[in-house]
Amino acid sequence: MIKNSFQAKCAAIAENKIFTNTIIGLIIFNAIIVGFETYPAISNQFPSIIYWLDTLLLAVFTIEIIIRLIGSSSLTAFFKSPWNVFDFIIISASFVFLGSSYIMVLRILRVLRVLRAISIIPSLRKMVNALLLTIPSMGTIMILLGLFFYVYAVIGTTLFASISPEYFGSLHRTLLTLFQVITLESWASGVMYPILEQDPSSWWYFVTFILIGAFVIINLFVGVVVNNVEEASREETPSPTDLKLEEMEKELKEIKALLKEKSTRD
Amino acid sequence: MIKNSFQAKCAAIAENKIFTNTIIGLIIFNAIIVGFETYPAISNQFPSIIYWLDTLLLAVFTIEIIIRLIGSSSLTAFFKSPWNVFDFIIISASFVFLGSSYIMVLRILRVLRVLRAISIIPSLRKMVNALLLTIPSMGTIMILLGLFFYVYAVIGTTLFASISPEYFGSLHRTLLTLFQVITLESWASGVMYPILEQDPSSWWYFVTFILIGAFVIINLFVGVVVNNVEEASREETPSPTDLKLEEMEKELKEIKALLKEKSTRD
Amino acid sequence: MIKNSFQAKCAAIAENKIFTNTIIGLIIFNAIIVGFETYPAISNQFPSIIYWLDTLLLAVFTIEIIIRLIGSSSLTAFFKSPWNVFDFIIISASFVFLGSSYIMVLRILRVLRVLRAISIIPSLRKMVNALLLTIPSMGTIMILLGLFFYVYAVIGTTLFASISPEYFGSLHRTLLTLFQVITLESWASGVMYPILEQDPSSWWYFVTFILIGAFVIINLFVGVVVNNVEEASREETPSPTDLKLEEMEKELKEIKALLKEKSTRD
Amino acid sequence: MIKNSFQAKCAAIAENKIFTNTIIGLIIFNAIIVGFETYPAISNQFPSIIYWLDTLLLAVFTIEIIIRLIGSSSLTAFFKSPWNVFDFIIISASFVFLGSSYIMVLRILRVLRVLRAISIIPSLRKMVNALLLTIPSMGTIMILLGLFFYVYAVIGTTLFASISPEYFGSLHRTLLTLFQVITLESWASGVMYPILEQDPSSWWYFVTFILIGAFVIINLFVGVVVNNVEEASREETPSPTDLKLEEMEKELKEIKALLKEKSTRD
Repeated sequence: MIKNSFQAKCAAIAENKIFTNTIIGLIIFNAIIVGFETYPAISNQFPSIIYWLDTLLLAVFTIEIIIRLIGSSSLTAFFKSPWNVFDFIIISASFVFLGSSYIMVLRILRVLRVLRAISIIPSLRKMVNALLLTIPSMGTIMILLGLFFYVYAVIGTTLFASISPEYFGSLHRTLLTLFQVITLESWASGVMYPILEQDPSSWWYFVTFILIGAFVIINLFVGVVVNNVEEASREETPSPTDLKLEEMEKELKEIKALLKEKSTRD
Repeated sequence: MIKNSFQAKCAAIAENKIFTNTIIGLIIFNAIIVGFETYPAISNQFPSIIYWLDTLLLAVFTIEIIIRLIGSSSLTAFFKSPWNVFDFIIISASFVFLGSSYIMVLRILRVLRVLRAISIIPSLRKMVNALLLTIPSMGTIMILLGLFFYVYAVIGTTLFASISPEYFGSLHRTLLTLFQVITLESWASGVMYPILEQDPSSWWYFVTFILIGAFVIINLFVGVVVNNVEEASREETPSPTDLKLEEMEKELKEIKALLKEKSTRD
Repeated sequence: MIKNSFQAKCAAIAENKIFTNTIIGLIIFNAIIVGFETYPAISNQFPSIIYWLDTLLLAVFTIEIIIRLIGSSSLTAFFKSPWNVFDFIIISASFVFLGSSYIMVLRILRVLRVLRAISIIPSLRKMVNALLLTIPSMGTIMILLGLFFYVYAVIGTTLFASISPEYFGSLHRTLLTLFQVITLESWASGVMYPILEQDPSSWWYFVTFILIGAFVIINLFVGVVVNNVEEASREETPSPTDLKLEEMEKELKEIKALLKEKSTRD
Repeated sequence: MIKNSFQAKCAAIAENKIFTNTIIGLIIFNAIIVGFETYPAISNQFPSIIYWLDTLLLAVFTIEIIIRLIGSSSLTAFFKSPWNVFDFIIISASFVFLGSSYIMVLRILRVLRVLRAISIIPSLRKMVNALLLTIPSMGTIMILLGLFFYVYAVIGTTLFASISPEYFGSLHRTLLTLFQVITLESWASGVMYPILEQDPSSWWYFVTFILIGAFVIINLFVGVVVNNVEEASREETPSPTDLKLEEMEKELKEIKALLKEKSTRD
């Protein structure tokens, strides 16, 4: 009984506007501190202040998560939401590495706490959820692009490994180079021309890669994206066409009712 | 009474076609002078002519604003339109800096007067208004992109500040570098490869940043834009589908009227 | 009478499939010769052959235009089509420069004849016409972009002329640089960083230019294009929705007829 | 009779899920081996293992094709599907070059077998088929782009061959340079500025090429793609508008039936 009333209190706190706004404020404060820390001039002058502020923030965020955890009906209900899992990992990882000498890891964990803003601000969470929903529909495209990259990477490594070892020296290096080529960054001036000097016929490799790659990516990626956006906008606000159709349907039903009424009256 | 008739006269002038066309002509003339001024060969040969033309133009634009101000029903009505505020600031700022030695500021103010063409030509004003309307709907995206940039900037500064101080030396420098990377300009040849030489595993930082950044930007930015365009085009001219629907609705109403008329007649 | 029958004959020839296909073949042949001419090894070995082939082609194209000119009902009818004007200028210009020493101009005129393929092949002409139709609807955008470029060019020249004379030395040079920046080519590594070394706060100039420029261009350009494409596709093939609506309208009319028939019968 | 039962057995095997999944697994295994082969450290240490694995895979793929060939109703039915032709060529080419010293060709053939994943996994095959279907509708665009490239290439070679032989030395080199320019890679810093130093008026060549090229490509390419995507999505899942229309049509038919029934009853 006592536990239940305590749980209800925690749930009430977790959904309290002032509580969430305070947490959002602290996340922003956390972001500012993390930003200041990157300036050695500041972080070296006030090392203890930053350390204590950071410990305080971690304590508050820990208490917040515990309140939310108690406030939820059960452990499984809490961890069902991927956002809660995300929050939990970010905070608990800070404890795992606490006091360790992995300063880099701790710093990165501290900045990742800024991403908790997404899990707390509803509009951001909604938007990221919408983004993540488009990933499965891009699965087949990703496999196709992966195949395409892999085949070109093996061919590129086979052909150019000895000519241009800095770009095509090994399979993983070639994959990185192909990613650079598909972003069109220095693909000609940096990557192709030095190879062209020794193998003048190798232009086909780059031109076909860019043409096919751009074609596939534009055709499918943009396609799926446009499609998803249209669907989303269609679901949210009914179009004027649909509104008019609904009205007409109502009127049709009225006409049918009138006709039936008459036929029974007759 | 006298004041009112004077106000009416000013309002009439302000809406007069010849008056606005003259102002548009003077704005174009102002643009040409400002252009010539950038050529030292010209501005050094006729310094006094350019100075007097500029003073004359400022005088005319001041009179124009005063006429429009008097012509409007009240001060608050005049300053309600952001375009009037824009015009007022551009012109009054010229007086604030008049005679001062901030030649650069004066020159920039003079060229900004060219932007007054937007506030005077209706089609341009309409288009810019439509553009500004899309900004609020991009608010959430901007916050998301801001978070994404900030987190990557802190991580980048933490990891690469010592390896590549020219690109990742401080948080604000890293933010500029990340902007460069997202535009895909020299991201590999200029930014990544020098870092890769000392930290061969750092490719994940750039590849994930570009993939996530491009994905988020394409998915949301393009999405919102396409959506807005579609809405705009839908509002302006009704689609043939909607026109046909309207006709059908009219016919439905006629049928209902016929039925009702009959049932009352029976 | 004789003249009329001659004109009818010319019109028949001009519309003859074999005639147009021969001309298309000769245009392709002209393209190949023009291509070979760019290789000094070939053009130096057979200078007279190329010269004679070229004279022959010019003669044939001249006869073709004369036939088409006679075949059309009147001179004004012939020159009403911009494609005929284009054809006429390309051919007559070859005569103006014939025998002159402007070899470059003659060569360019010869290659421009290849563009006559557009005026002769109907599907190409249709597509280019569709493209040209989108230009007026982009007028306001172009003016807006022009204003935006001009203002930034004047500001850029004022601020950076002394720091970076190779990119911002004069107004026309700055305009070219801004075009380079908007294509995102070396905007950071080539243009901004050298300036940033002397004026560390100048990043705002480039970042705002790219952000506003990209925003305006994407928002308007893509918008208009997508809109035009949609309209075109809507006009060509009726959507399944519209087809269904048409069926429904027919049915509605039948119902109304039935009702009216009954009420007159009653 | 015996042959027919044998054919039926082969057809059953070819459509067996376990059989296709095994082949998919072997294709992935083939991809991994081909990847390892590119690392000299690995391929030099176990040359015989890789050789034997490769021979084994070729044997299995050959048997698989033979089973599928026997399983199909006739030779023409088998080779009607372009995917079967693709599979057959990839495998039979391995035999043609078997034992030859063209190691490069053999390696490329081995990696091309990875593309067989497309012909076997239905979702990938469906997607690539959809992609290939968009090619014919882009035919006219491609011809237009080809004309545009060719004309600019001839002009470029004529004008700049002596100024910039590394980019405009010959027609085929210019075509490659123009492809680089249209991808906006180093078009200004690498290609234009060195030419601009000797021919300051040559900027028009690059600016018009990029403007026209980008305009044509965006306007047509994107247009066709968006169109195709929309059509595809429309065909797959009926829109809510169409579903509502179908309902309404049903209701209309019911009303008509009621009216007709009545008029016959009267």
